[in-house]
Amino acid sequence: MKIALLGFGTVGRGVDQIISERVPDVEVARILELPDRLTDPRMTSSYDDIVADPEIGLVVECMGGVEPARTYIMAALEAGKHVVTSNKAVVAAHFAEFAAASAASGAGLYIEASVGGGIPWIASVEKVRRIDEVTSFSGIMNGTTNYIVDAMRREGADFFEVLAEAQRLGYAERDPSADIDGIDVANKTIISASVAFDVACEKDLPVTGIRNLRKSDLDLLAGCGRTAKLLGRGVCRDGRYAAAVEPVAVSLDSLEASVPSNFNLVTLDATTVGELRFYGQGAGSLPTGNAIVQDVLDCVRGVRRPAYDFSRGLAWDPELLRSDHVFRTEATIPGSEPFAPGAVVARDVTAAEARALLDAALEVDPTTFMAALA
Amino acid sequence: MKIALLGFGTVGRGVDQIISERVPDVEVARILELPDRLTDPRMTSSYDDIVADPEIGLVVECMGGVEPARTYIMAALEAGKHVVTSNKAVVAAHFAEFAAASAASGAGLYIEASVGGGIPWIASVEKVRRIDEVTSFSGIMNGTTNYIVDAMRREGADFFEVLAEAQRLGYAERDPSADIDGIDVANKTIISASVAFDVACEKDLPVTGIRNLRKSDLDLLAGCGRTAKLLGRGVCRDGRYAAAVEPVAVSLDSLEASVPSNFNLVTLDATTVGELRFYGQGAGSLPTGNAIVQDVLDCVRGVRRPAYDFSRGLAWDPELLRSDHVFRTEATIPGSEPFAPGAVVARDVTAAEARALLDAALEVDPTTFMAALA
Repeated sequence: MKIALLGFGTVGRGVDQIISERVPDVEVARILELPDRLTDPRMTSSYDDIVADPEIGLVVECMGGVEPARTYIMAALEAGKHVVTSNKAVVAAHFAEFAAASAASGAGLYIEASVGGGIPWIASVEKVRRIDEVTSFSGIMNGTTNYIVDAMRREGADFFEVLAEAQRLGYAERDPSADIDGIDVANKTIISASVAFDVACEKDLPVTGIRNLRKSDLDLLAGCGRTAKLLGRGVCRDGRYAAAVEPVAVSLDSLEASVPSNFNLVTLDATTVGELRFYGQGAGSLPTGNAIVQDVLDCVRGVRRPAYDFSRGLAWDPELLRSDHVFRTEATIPGSEPFAPGAVVARDVTAAEARALLDAALEVDPTTFMAALA
Repeated sequence: MKIALLGFGTVGRGVDQIISERVPDVEVARILELPDRLTDPRMTSSYDDIVADPEIGLVVECMGGVEPARTYIMAALEAGKHVVTSNKAVVAAHFAEFAAASAASGAGLYIEASVGGGIPWIASVEKVRRIDEVTSFSGIMNGTTNYIVDAMRREGADFFEVLAEAQRLGYAERDPSADIDGIDVANKTIISASVAFDVACEKDLPVTGIRNLRKSDLDLLAGCGRTAKLLGRGVCRDGRYAAAVEPVAVSLDSLEASVPSNFNLVTLDATTVGELRFYGQGAGSLPTGNAIVQDVLDCVRGVRRPAYDFSRGLAWDPELLRSDHVFRTEATIPGSEPFAPGAVVARDVTAAEARALLDAALEVDPTTFMAALA
């Protein structure tokens, strides 16, 4: 089959390399690039050249960002071309719209690479759901923040020092907000909840990142046998569901605590199979390229045709995600108890309530750090 | 599709339960049982009733043991009936024969449940190999021994105490040899190497279990930041491969060290996707039943038709698995250096050489314990 790549950055180049070296039955025939970067005969700067080409059966979108990715994906699906995408921002924002266009035209929508890089997470959740209900999921879904927390813990360095190093190594963007404020994890959590629970997931979930995590916070948590990891989580029970992104103080002997460097670890719990966990490179040219090519092969070889139907009507219920939350702050947290010097604990609050408590505390002490107790 | 179960123990009952509750398009029509246990109208004690029934399209073998499982599997494949099995002993012993019969008749051979219980390990290895070469694998593949080591470490109890508790809980057999001597892991390692490397894996691989692991060994290893885990491992490089089963002294902050209770963790390394790890329940009625039903669905829905071809002619080369090995023994280990009080280390020996050193040491000190340094 002839396919087109939209975008030729890190991921697009990985896809092109893997297909040309390892997948003889697929050909990257066209590549959409900016007008001043047309360095390859396959390249064009006009999307019409691609979407109007009857020989192109599948479009791989790896541009990132919401527009023009959304417009291009919709145009491809409406033209009956299969779409494979690694773009979590656009899928999280427009999943239901894409699913409806895919169902209407019969073109496939493949999103494996949008969560967990090379980890076969989305396809595994779909496979589990052939038999089981997924009752919860939870994961380290962002390599940059895991790299930062892991390096802070191993090297005893502080946040901004490690962030600068991560930027130097190319693990973190020059503007690191999407990573350190939890926005990237929120997109992956929305997508995971949608696939795991069959719901157009609420976009306004509670989201807290690790911008205010300091070495002293890790020391404090280590004193109680814990460390902090930024987790995206979702729960589904009795026709209701909830999701949240927040730092979680996990036990030092948990698998999460042992995840090194920029790796990801995602976990699901399901009715008969129980707990399953998947670990691998959450980003990078070849791992993410591999996930895209796996989707391309599933499509080309007719192995898997995802069908997303969000008509189940699950109700959003923040009450499903409740736990104790620790705050390191000079502000007063209403209803809290002492936890450790400089830190208090608010018992049995929802992730949404904890986020509201954090917002109020940040008004008083902008350095406030919060973590849920696992 | 109508299917038959051969065996109605823990796993067979799990399969029947999952299919009847969750899989409307499959019917368990016949069950092979012993003549004195025919308690269900679907049951028969005559395999001919099943293999000669044209309505039965697929046979699930969950009897365990080599015979008559081998004869029944061959008869089913030769009759053009698909086979799904959870029986690692028979697959490890007769994989090439089954693969040839499957290729000859066109009947599918599905073995997901033979390794890693509910973990989608075999199908994931096969998926990875659509694109990548698998260069190595490694795993905690036996829940009983992981339960024992984990409980010894957490509770400070000694080996036979914990083994008795595991037997009481049903995690260990009355005769625990297959688990604690590494035979079960050897079977799973042979199967994993066969699937990962496309080779009828050497049966005479070096195998060492944890029968001689004592609390004092865990204390000694903890003193150097390690703990012991029983791992099955395989490596493939330059047209050669090796595999082994032995206790490995892993770092306390490795993921292996954090695997609790009777869970399994299996890892592969592949060309473009890098390291992938899979974690879940390695045994049990519903997890293993789930893996079997996933294979049944892959077969019935035409999603996956494994094709095992062992004609690649890889050479067995024990040199590929080399590392330092620690021995706690009163015997003299030739060429070793002191490691800790009561223990020595043999540097850079193959797993096969280490097993030979262990055999000689056991003649002098039958309590000798050996572990590879990861």
